[in-house]
Amino acid sequence: MTTGHTDPQRRERIITATLDLIAEDGLPSVSHRKIATRAGVPLGSMTYHFGGIDQLLRESFSRFTDHIVAVFDAHLAAPADREQALEAVTDLIHTLSEGSRRDLVLTQELYTLAARRPAYRELTHEWMRRSRIHLEKHFDPDTARQLDALIEGLTLHRALAKEPHDRALTLEAVSRITTTGRQDH
Amino acid sequence: MTTGHTDPQRRERIITATLDLIAEDGLPSVSHRKIATRAGVPLGSMTYHFGGIDQLLRESFSRFTDHIVAVFDAHLAAPADREQALEAVTDLIHTLSEGSRRDLVLTQELYTLAARRPAYRELTHEWMRRSRIHLEKHFDPDTARQLDALIEGLTLHRALAKEPHDRALTLEAVSRITTTGRQDH
Repeated sequence: MTTGHTDPQRRERIITATLDLIAEDGLPSVSHRKIATRAGVPLGSMTYHFGGIDQLLRESFSRFTDHIVAVFDAHLAAPADREQALEAVTDLIHTLSEGSRRDLVLTQELYTLAARRPAYRELTHEWMRRSRIHLEKHFDPDTARQLDALIEGLTLHRALAKEPHDRALTLEAVSRITTTGRQDH
Repeated sequence: MTTGHTDPQRRERIITATLDLIAEDGLPSVSHRKIATRAGVPLGSMTYHFGGIDQLLRESFSRFTDHIVAVFDAHLAAPADREQALEAVTDLIHTLSEGSRRDLVLTQELYTLAARRPAYRELTHEWMRRSRIHLEKHFDPDTARQLDALIEGLTLHRALAKEPHDRALTLEAVSRITTTGRQDH
């Protein structure tokens, strides 16, 4: 069993502990000391693995967005006709909005961080870019951008609603936002 | 000049100080002591005016959502034909997404709070309900719900983007999501 600086699991444990603490207590409450305690690593190993709190936050949130992008990929990877693509996006929205509270909180914490500190918008920018790549497998780039925003809004509103709207309404919204070339103005 | 407990401006100053501190430092960093210092009121007057931190947060965020609902009202109050309504919603999205960083951060802080503590979802629920009432002046209820989610997503994505999408794309999205009865599936 390796337990020193070269233990790759130690790095992973630090990242997991960071995301857990942010989800539970909020970003401003997180400190090197709390993370080290939670991860079960010596305080000194924090600075060995991560240059500072900014690098640690970047890598932790980057790991989190990888997880959400993988959910996009799982729903959108297969070839699909229009009908199937609409169903796949609808399923994606319901999976995301019915997911864990941890995911919901971490998403909002990342947006709050990016809102407050523009240097962190590189993370959200990269996240949106990767989400759109998956949507562009089935829709043109302008439609993918509109659809990505709709997914964001419907997911948040369903997740926070006392009585979340039903699948038919999600499907209708996805269908409308992806219907091109028939604007009546 | 009144300076005691009955000074109505003292209550207002506490609410403003609360929102300022949340916007600057994040919700977990906020305390009675910091708020009292910022508002320039004795610590004791905090408990006179507000039963506890929960009541203070509720009233402060409620005041904040009043402000955003007023922006909806300002854009959507006038009678409008479909063309004008689409333009009004597009203007609303660009006003919100180009607004102050304070508004952007407070919106995300409220969503984070509601995500973490379901008891606070009464606030976001009421906010969404009031937003939809304004949208329902121009669109049917199901469309208003879809449009409200789109406004949420487009506003956030524009606010955080390095290169925010242009007005034409917003208008197209608003037009598509409000185009009813012509689904091709």
